[in-house]
Amino acid sequence: MKYPLEISATYTDLYQLTMGQAYFLSGRADEPAVFDYFFRKLPFDGGFVIFAGLEDFLETLERFHFNEADIDFLASRGFNKKYLDYLQSFRFRGSIVSCGEGEVVFPTRPVLRAEGGLLETQLIETMLLNLLNFQSLIATKAARMRLAAGDRVLSEFGLRRAQGLGGYHASRAAVVGGMNSTSHVLAARDFGLEANGTMAHSFIQGYEQEIDAFRAYAEVFPDATVLLVDTYDTLESGIPNAIKMGLELRENGHQLKGIRLDSGDLAYLSKRARHMLDEAGLQDVRIVASNQLDEYVIRSLIHQGAPIDIFGVGTSLATGKPDAALDGVYKLAKSAGKPRIKLSETIRKVTLPDRKQVYRILDEEGRFFGADAVTLDGEEQPPVIFDPFEPRKSLDLEGCQAEPQLREVMRDGRITLEQRGLSHAAAWCRQRLALLPDEYKRFDNPHIYKVGISQSLHDLRTRLTNEHSS
Amino acid sequence: MKYPLEISATYTDLYQLTMGQAYFLSGRADEPAVFDYFFRKLPFDGGFVIFAGLEDFLETLERFHFNEADIDFLASRGFNKKYLDYLQSFRFRGSIVSCGEGEVVFPTRPVLRAEGGLLETQLIETMLLNLLNFQSLIATKAARMRLAAGDRVLSEFGLRRAQGLGGYHASRAAVVGGMNSTSHVLAARDFGLEANGTMAHSFIQGYEQEIDAFRAYAEVFPDATVLLVDTYDTLESGIPNAIKMGLELRENGHQLKGIRLDSGDLAYLSKRARHMLDEAGLQDVRIVASNQLDEYVIRSLIHQGAPIDIFGVGTSLATGKPDAALDGVYKLAKSAGKPRIKLSETIRKVTLPDRKQVYRILDEEGRFFGADAVTLDGEEQPPVIFDPFEPRKSLDLEGCQAEPQLREVMRDGRITLEQRGLSHAAAWCRQRLALLPDEYKRFDNPHIYKVGISQSLHDLRTRLTNEHSS
Repeated sequence: MKYPLEISATYTDLYQLTMGQAYFLSGRADEPAVFDYFFRKLPFDGGFVIFAGLEDFLETLERFHFNEADIDFLASRGFNKKYLDYLQSFRFRGSIVSCGEGEVVFPTRPVLRAEGGLLETQLIETMLLNLLNFQSLIATKAARMRLAAGDRVLSEFGLRRAQGLGGYHASRAAVVGGMNSTSHVLAARDFGLEANGTMAHSFIQGYEQEIDAFRAYAEVFPDATVLLVDTYDTLESGIPNAIKMGLELRENGHQLKGIRLDSGDLAYLSKRARHMLDEAGLQDVRIVASNQLDEYVIRSLIHQGAPIDIFGVGTSLATGKPDAALDGVYKLAKSAGKPRIKLSETIRKVTLPDRKQVYRILDEEGRFFGADAVTLDGEEQPPVIFDPFEPRKSLDLEGCQAEPQLREVMRDGRITLEQRGLSHAAAWCRQRLALLPDEYKRFDNPHIYKVGISQSLHDLRTRLTNEHSS
Repeated sequence: MKYPLEISATYTDLYQLTMGQAYFLSGRADEPAVFDYFFRKLPFDGGFVIFAGLEDFLETLERFHFNEADIDFLASRGFNKKYLDYLQSFRFRGSIVSCGEGEVVFPTRPVLRAEGGLLETQLIETMLLNLLNFQSLIATKAARMRLAAGDRVLSEFGLRRAQGLGGYHASRAAVVGGMNSTSHVLAARDFGLEANGTMAHSFIQGYEQEIDAFRAYAEVFPDATVLLVDTYDTLESGIPNAIKMGLELRENGHQLKGIRLDSGDLAYLSKRARHMLDEAGLQDVRIVASNQLDEYVIRSLIHQGAPIDIFGVGTSLATGKPDAALDGVYKLAKSAGKPRIKLSETIRKVTLPDRKQVYRILDEEGRFFGADAVTLDGEEQPPVIFDPFEPRKSLDLEGCQAEPQLREVMRDGRITLEQRGLSHAAAWCRQRLALLPDEYKRFDNPHIYKVGISQSLHDLRTRLTNEHSS
């Protein structure tokens, strides 16, 4: 591994570079092109996706270039000399329009659009997909945990089982989706996240007696200690020793912050622990629970009345188990002034041509009505939309309010995004999720949010399909 | 995101740093300690794991340090000034003993061991787990695909759906486990991998006619063109146009390299494609298939006689679907000269104390016998081993050959690993997997490879368990 890792413009698939050479040599590099980013399938059998990673993507894109090592490597692979000269000064000079980071989004409809020269818009595909697919997956998982946890505290502990360096953005995206904090120090440093943690079993094991370990830690952090109580025996040893420490700390004018349960039946143990702590007068000591938690376990624990104050979630969040990937794609919608389509034997894989806008339809109270309308760019909010795959299904939108979803966030290669920063994205996610009716947020058989296309878009697609099939 | 990403020593969980401060302030930083890296559960319902990531881990460890931004951040978090001075000059000065990268390994037994001061060995935990768990997961997935594919070509195409920057090491680990090449240019550049690729649908869409796109590409790469044939209609348009191009190229003294099928029934389409190509005299044109392949689909395609020469595998490989994580842990085995144990209500989570060695037992032909023996370090190969969780089960090893598995790869913080480089790790994986009998390699209900402990280790563990339970 190169250290430090530099995400240069070779963070891409080889074919982007070979196609680029073909465009370059045939004089088509600057031909205007429009690409859409969208996904086809909702992860986790859920009803929505939280769009995340936008600001990272834009920052990476602003600096996306080929360094010397890249050019040398490509030269060794036989790329054309003039093309390499071109790549040496390559920078993305196009535009990006997008939903806000933290937005609630749905399949089929464009989430983001890239416009610029054919070569540059093609070259950024892999990096764009890599950053946006992953962060949106993790933010969605985090949002599901937030829905399950209500207002309890959620902390992300996943770095040790994260997918290598993917753990860096996992911690970030988890906070966009609803986590309060992370254990991951580098991510906290770079993204301004709240960092926290407790202690490991090894810390306890390294002392002759559990209480010695507790005391050694509490001496150093007398007001920030969360004691791990399951190294030897939770009920017989860990909690009684934690209570001893809690009382000792109080005598000295301090406050034990919490205990952590990391194995066993968390519902039962948390109730017993709460009872034992309360009996000892330690009502303020909080209970942290960890050990293979996901949104279903959190929901179940809360339904069982488990008095857990803080959930530490790791692997399932940081890796987006069990789906592990969002199936986002990046498809050509227009080039050389012409709308473009990709056909497929699977109708659900036929793309939506041309430059488009998306309207989110609102109900009378300003909440999400349950439908997004995809139109040609410049079209007004449409009075009726059609199912893109079963066009005989339509939905009347006469009189509905709507808001356009895609706004410029980069122009001529420079970021124009107004609201920056992670706390803004996290707040936007909370705000938008609150507008989504509960039926779309439930875990079991959620309502399907409708995505429809306007009459004009429908007609254009039909025409292009017929042209290619004839 | 900081650009480029620097993996400094804050690539860790906060609690490593708080525990470190407690060790530092109580004068225990340099107390000798031994930690084991091992995992508990085989991924993919399979029979083995391929250990990968060792060299990356060692290189990262050799340079693991806190930079100025780290120290500033930690200072802002209220860490002790003297401790921060210590961290400022922190380097890992300990030793690592390990299996070779590419080794076939099994649950419970140590895969790698870290030794050094208590603080330094604790501090590296998260980074170690992050890099080794992920790469071992991916190498294992790749090895399963290699088992399914026999000697067909396998290429990794996963970057766009990889877990963010995790895609960097995913491409590397995939080659350790058996992939021939990757589409990922940065990984190819840094790890010396073979890079390859075909073309995207967007390339085809950008031309008025499919054949125009094919011709434009082939003009630039007349001997390295793989034509994507499913943009409009595979059998009616894509393959006939590819045949046209193949004949044109041949007339001009060149050779069409292949076609790629990316949708539809790959078994049916590949047979039809092979037939059409052969009929046209294009027997040398190879067939590449992609689209949500995993080891099961590859196996099925081969069983159906699909004449696919090259499989392009993406998401399921790069993310290790559906498991998404290897559950590797890092546990204290010894400190201050004393063996250490972690108990648990789950007997399978009780650790193996003290510094240990692992012997791989061999059969008369030098193949893996089906058992690894864990002993105390310095013990000879044991005559009998006991199931670590059901000690009444034992296995007689009298007269068996065995080889010790853990060898020094770092001493005093410097890499001493002799065999470096990815091709060595990939070759070692192939070689070792060939020694593993088929029953452990099958996908459905594979044999369980036995891992046993020696009498001395068993006795030590029993004694420590009793001490802590009394």
